[in-house]
Amino acid sequence: MKKDTIVANATPLIPSAVGIVRISGEDALKIGKQIFTLPQEIQERKAYFGKILDLDGSVLDEGLFIYFKAPKSFTGEDVVEIYPHGSVPVIKKIIENVITLGGRLANPGEFTYRAFLNGKIDLTQAEAIADLISAKTEKASKAAVRLLEGKLSEKINSLRETLLNLISLIEAEINFPEDVEEIDSQLIVENLLKVKKSIDKLVGSYKKGSLIKEGIKLAIVGRPNVGKSSLFNAMVGYERSIVSSYQGTTRDFIEETLKIKDIPIILLDTAGIRETAEYVEKLGIERSKQKIEEADIILFVIDGSQGFTDEDKKIYDEIKNKIHIIVINKADLITKPLDIFEKSDNIIYTSSVTFQGIKDLEEKIIEILGITETEDEIIINLRHYTLLKQAIEKIEKVVENIDFLIENKEILMLDLQEVLNYLEEIVGHITTEDVLGNIFSKFCIGK
Amino acid sequence: MKKDTIVANATPLIPSAVGIVRISGEDALKIGKQIFTLPQEIQERKAYFGKILDLDGSVLDEGLFIYFKAPKSFTGEDVVEIYPHGSVPVIKKIIENVITLGGRLANPGEFTYRAFLNGKIDLTQAEAIADLISAKTEKASKAAVRLLEGKLSEKINSLRETLLNLISLIEAEINFPEDVEEIDSQLIVENLLKVKKSIDKLVGSYKKGSLIKEGIKLAIVGRPNVGKSSLFNAMVGYERSIVSSYQGTTRDFIEETLKIKDIPIILLDTAGIRETAEYVEKLGIERSKQKIEEADIILFVIDGSQGFTDEDKKIYDEIKNKIHIIVINKADLITKPLDIFEKSDNIIYTSSVTFQGIKDLEEKIIEILGITETEDEIIINLRHYTLLKQAIEKIEKVVENIDFLIENKEILMLDLQEVLNYLEEIVGHITTEDVLGNIFSKFCIGK
Repeated sequence: MKKDTIVANATPLIPSAVGIVRISGEDALKIGKQIFTLPQEIQERKAYFGKILDLDGSVLDEGLFIYFKAPKSFTGEDVVEIYPHGSVPVIKKIIENVITLGGRLANPGEFTYRAFLNGKIDLTQAEAIADLISAKTEKASKAAVRLLEGKLSEKINSLRETLLNLISLIEAEINFPEDVEEIDSQLIVENLLKVKKSIDKLVGSYKKGSLIKEGIKLAIVGRPNVGKSSLFNAMVGYERSIVSSYQGTTRDFIEETLKIKDIPIILLDTAGIRETAEYVEKLGIERSKQKIEEADIILFVIDGSQGFTDEDKKIYDEIKNKIHIIVINKADLITKPLDIFEKSDNIIYTSSVTFQGIKDLEEKIIEILGITETEDEIIINLRHYTLLKQAIEKIEKVVENIDFLIENKEILMLDLQEVLNYLEEIVGHITTEDVLGNIFSKFCIGK
Repeated sequence: MKKDTIVANATPLIPSAVGIVRISGEDALKIGKQIFTLPQEIQERKAYFGKILDLDGSVLDEGLFIYFKAPKSFTGEDVVEIYPHGSVPVIKKIIENVITLGGRLANPGEFTYRAFLNGKIDLTQAEAIADLISAKTEKASKAAVRLLEGKLSEKINSLRETLLNLISLIEAEINFPEDVEEIDSQLIVENLLKVKKSIDKLVGSYKKGSLIKEGIKLAIVGRPNVGKSSLFNAMVGYERSIVSSYQGTTRDFIEETLKIKDIPIILLDTAGIRETAEYVEKLGIERSKQKIEEADIILFVIDGSQGFTDEDKKIYDEIKNKIHIIVINKADLITKPLDIFEKSDNIIYTSSVTFQGIKDLEEKIIEILGITETEDEIIINLRHYTLLKQAIEKIEKVVENIDFLIENKEILMLDLQEVLNYLEEIVGHITTEDVLGNIFSKFCIGK
């Protein structure tokens, strides 16, 4: 299919030192030559400095021009990149001129989509680009780059091979029952469990992956006036929520993002939980309870100078079954040993005044959630996670019913084919327009 | 002087398709090679695709690498540009790594400053880059590009030559009074007036230049309820200020920017001018009067259906000495011929209901302010304008006192030298640290 020529800015339309206009398609070079002063013969991949021309021949800007000859380009098509200054009217005008000369404004993600269609990258790599661009932290960007490098694809492809081998054995037996040995159900189960083990590991990494990518949701919970807001501020590192010594000051929850060891932490500062008649405060508390449900981890705060009160106990009972850390705050005011209510590794003494324990607290959060360094593949994409889960479920069903299936090899084959399909869908060997549209529409323009 | 190696992002730190990290200085290539997978031997100005490495050897991203060998680079030094994805943590990490390897974060404008110091561009061209980047419209960017191309410098340099010739003639006469003919004061005056004429033309273009660059300030003035807000909205093209039929609805002025023929128009919607006891409204009126003083042009609006009232007359008397257009609004409601108060080309009939006359009005604004198309040089920079004005003033003084000066050639020479200095300062042959600091500190980072 002949592809039309698309154009877009690859840098934001914001004043900056340099901008990039990217053109891809059959006419990219022909159009590019009309709007840039170039030597007669040009080499591919060489940066030419020259004048960027308006259609009337006047000069729009000076800048660089690079031609990437198909298929050795990002999209696999002929690509021209023009680098003007990062001047918004200049970039807009260049794009406008390319369109006048026969180009078309690219849809979001259309360059990457073409790279995918032309076999330059598979679907996980395309998704990795979107994840990389939107990464908020270095950890998230590194996980995305491993995806971009095709590490997940390699793993998936080796699992696909195992499945394909099984399927072809079964197929052979169905088609030539006389010529081949009957397959042992044990062999099938063993191979499937091996596949399942690998997938289990990937699936297990998703929680970590999504924490790295989306951030940890952390709720600070406790009765009024135990110092939740000051703890919050000590963690955020500056005065963001109003701290006062009156009860019930924090009327609503406050969201703030900080980073602990390069992982984004979304701190949910919740209204103090207690019975109250006042409507506004009640509303705040209702929302706090919702936030607690959403939280990945809860900091349960008590006032060390007052000990563990009955009110504390009541609140603790509500959150103790969630992942939590017990924070004994105002540690600088503790005069006598505390009557600790339970033995736990998850108790941290803090002071928002002396900053005692704040660092320990942050390390404990990372430790409890198990977000340690690793070179293994991490699933950061919900689509991959969902497909892998579906593959596992199907494998489990096959293993469960293997005695029936070994006698009904046509059904067995269809089942294994379904497992295979889930994996193929991850790397993009099997896709629907819907899935593709959904993935690429989320890209920014120019990519 | 040996220059250290500087690094900065040349694109905004915002998620986007592609980002650029620019490194300039003696160690640019040495550092670049440590953080990018490259072939053994690399060619200058060639775009290499490869992996961008972290300091521990892990992959940060994939992207392009271009080496610009000194002096054929933007700064005139060795320059390396790395093009990762537009991922904020990736770009930050690359910069961090370059700094760890011996680079230093560039100050705003430092790349351009080095280009200036290395004689790659003169000062007007450096300023042109800043103007180009911050241009809001195509007209403004085109004026900046002509500056970047050195068109103003060419003109200034030819004037400098005339002055230098005069100065050397006078110098010769001072040093060798016996050997050279005495200079005719007429010759000096003629040459100076020729120079002055050229400068006058440039100075005269500054009003236009600043309107193109900064936009036209336009105030809509008239008694209450003549339809100022609806006219404003008709021009802006959407509902921005509240329109109602009660008097005095527009309590405060509203600023809005629109473009007419690619020139930014800053529309000042002013409170209706009339005597009033109400404090808030009075405040609005006070500010309106201030706005009228600031305005480049005034639209004086009357209600066509009511004719030219005494109140209109009173307001008109206040603004008639400023550049203005008389707008007879509600033209769709005019039933009998208007008793026009004066003959004027600057009368436009409009209707915010039928949009009659809105386009004519916009064209009239451009016409009155004389912002027509031209290929001539336009002064868009206040610094250039100020120096040119100073040159003119000095020339005028010399011409005025030529009879005295021709008898005191040492003083004449110093005076001409002063004129020359103003011109040299424009192109940057003579500069002070203060001037340079002021110019380059306004740049964005990475430029």
